[in-house]
Amino acid sequence: MSLGTLYLIPTTLGEGCDLSAILPEQARRLAASLRTFVTEHPKTARQFLKQTGTAIALQEIRMSTLDEHTRPDELASLLQPLLDGEDVGLLSEAGCPAVADPGATLVRLAHARNIRVVPLVGPSSILLALMGSGLNGQSFAFLGYLPAEKSARINKIQEIEQHSLRLNQTQIFIETPYRNQQLLQDLVATCASDTELCVATDLTLASEDIRTKSIAEWKRKLPDCDKHPTVFVLYRRPVDKMPRQATARQRK
Amino acid sequence: MSLGTLYLIPTTLGEGCDLSAILPEQARRLAASLRTFVTEHPKTARQFLKQTGTAIALQEIRMSTLDEHTRPDELASLLQPLLDGEDVGLLSEAGCPAVADPGATLVRLAHARNIRVVPLVGPSSILLALMGSGLNGQSFAFLGYLPAEKSARINKIQEIEQHSLRLNQTQIFIETPYRNQQLLQDLVATCASDTELCVATDLTLASEDIRTKSIAEWKRKLPDCDKHPTVFVLYRRPVDKMPRQATARQRK
Repeated sequence: MSLGTLYLIPTTLGEGCDLSAILPEQARRLAASLRTFVTEHPKTARQFLKQTGTAIALQEIRMSTLDEHTRPDELASLLQPLLDGEDVGLLSEAGCPAVADPGATLVRLAHARNIRVVPLVGPSSILLALMGSGLNGQSFAFLGYLPAEKSARINKIQEIEQHSLRLNQTQIFIETPYRNQQLLQDLVATCASDTELCVATDLTLASEDIRTKSIAEWKRKLPDCDKHPTVFVLYRRPVDKMPRQATARQRK
Repeated sequence: MSLGTLYLIPTTLGEGCDLSAILPEQARRLAASLRTFVTEHPKTARQFLKQTGTAIALQEIRMSTLDEHTRPDELASLLQPLLDGEDVGLLSEAGCPAVADPGATLVRLAHARNIRVVPLVGPSSILLALMGSGLNGQSFAFLGYLPAEKSARINKIQEIEQHSLRLNQTQIFIETPYRNQQLLQDLVATCASDTELCVATDLTLASEDIRTKSIAEWKRKLPDCDKHPTVFVLYRRPVDKMPRQATARQRK
């Protein structure tokens, strides 16, 4: 018997986003044709499936959950439909599955059983923030969440800044939305004045706002991203890669 | 006078790829409506624009080049149409502009002049490889190309593997396609047998092939990705995060 294929299907990054803005037509049609899904959050997955215009009744769709509470011994049952020859769609709560969510475990197991894995194109807030930042896209790292406790967070910010300078690498991180303003205050209080910071809020939504400034510029006026999903992109540029304005004196 | 908007428009990752598989409909329509572009490679940009079905005659489209040979003093002229109120599309040779290409410089200058920057959703071989790998998507880094010289490359591979273990971070890198097989041989000769490696070839194309195995498994049979665009994803899993099979003995 042939094995099924595991399709990694990206979803919207928030409410009020039209699928035609974030998902290629082929991916939408494929999502609308599947009957078996593994989802991080069944409620948002059902909303997404309605948006795809699926002709399959929602009660005929089999939906299993894979989230941070899923135990390792439950993974085998999530894999079973694929071993039985059925195609399965993996859906994250927002954006691309298997990036910054628990989905990667299932993908890794699929490889171990020679199941074909097909990632589909869709929105990733991490990648959109990096593109939109204008900061170094030749080398970058995504670090996930920063520590919630203040002194640990400040230590981490210092480490991130040093890392960026030493590796010439853009550093990307996120925070729980209600702590965004606190993180911003810690960033401007901790980082060097010519470190560059992009604040990318509500990506792909009507309220999208992406701005890159130096820490010195941000200090004059902090952006308001309180309770809005935001990606932070930080780059401590080596002196020989300063933008023209900043190096004008040296180059004369 | 109001400023123009800089749209970052992703393109296909290779020939023979239908836009409906990789670009959301809104992004395609937007690309088809613009008259001014900054492109890494005008020939592939013109092919892409034809695919968008633009109704604007190609000779009426203004196309400037931004590539690795562009001098810093040429950037101002690329920015001028935006300052004059015109919308501009930024196109990379393949995939997402401003990621692993020279486009980021223009995006950074746009921010410095308060020009709105809008990144559109599309294919990134880096992100698709990470999704498809099933390796740690909570923390990852993209490193660009490895050194071409053999002993420097082997040193770099060792450094990448140690980095992955120490930071619990997936490491992503690329190679000039005609050197892929040499890189694979160096990887299996250098890395620990239980280090995991995903080889993701011809992403989004009909010949797409994504497989993740341990170095020990790859040693038995190397994949053939000679002269095919390939992304390499490496992860040295901390012992406490080994997959179930590998840790069965410890857990008993």
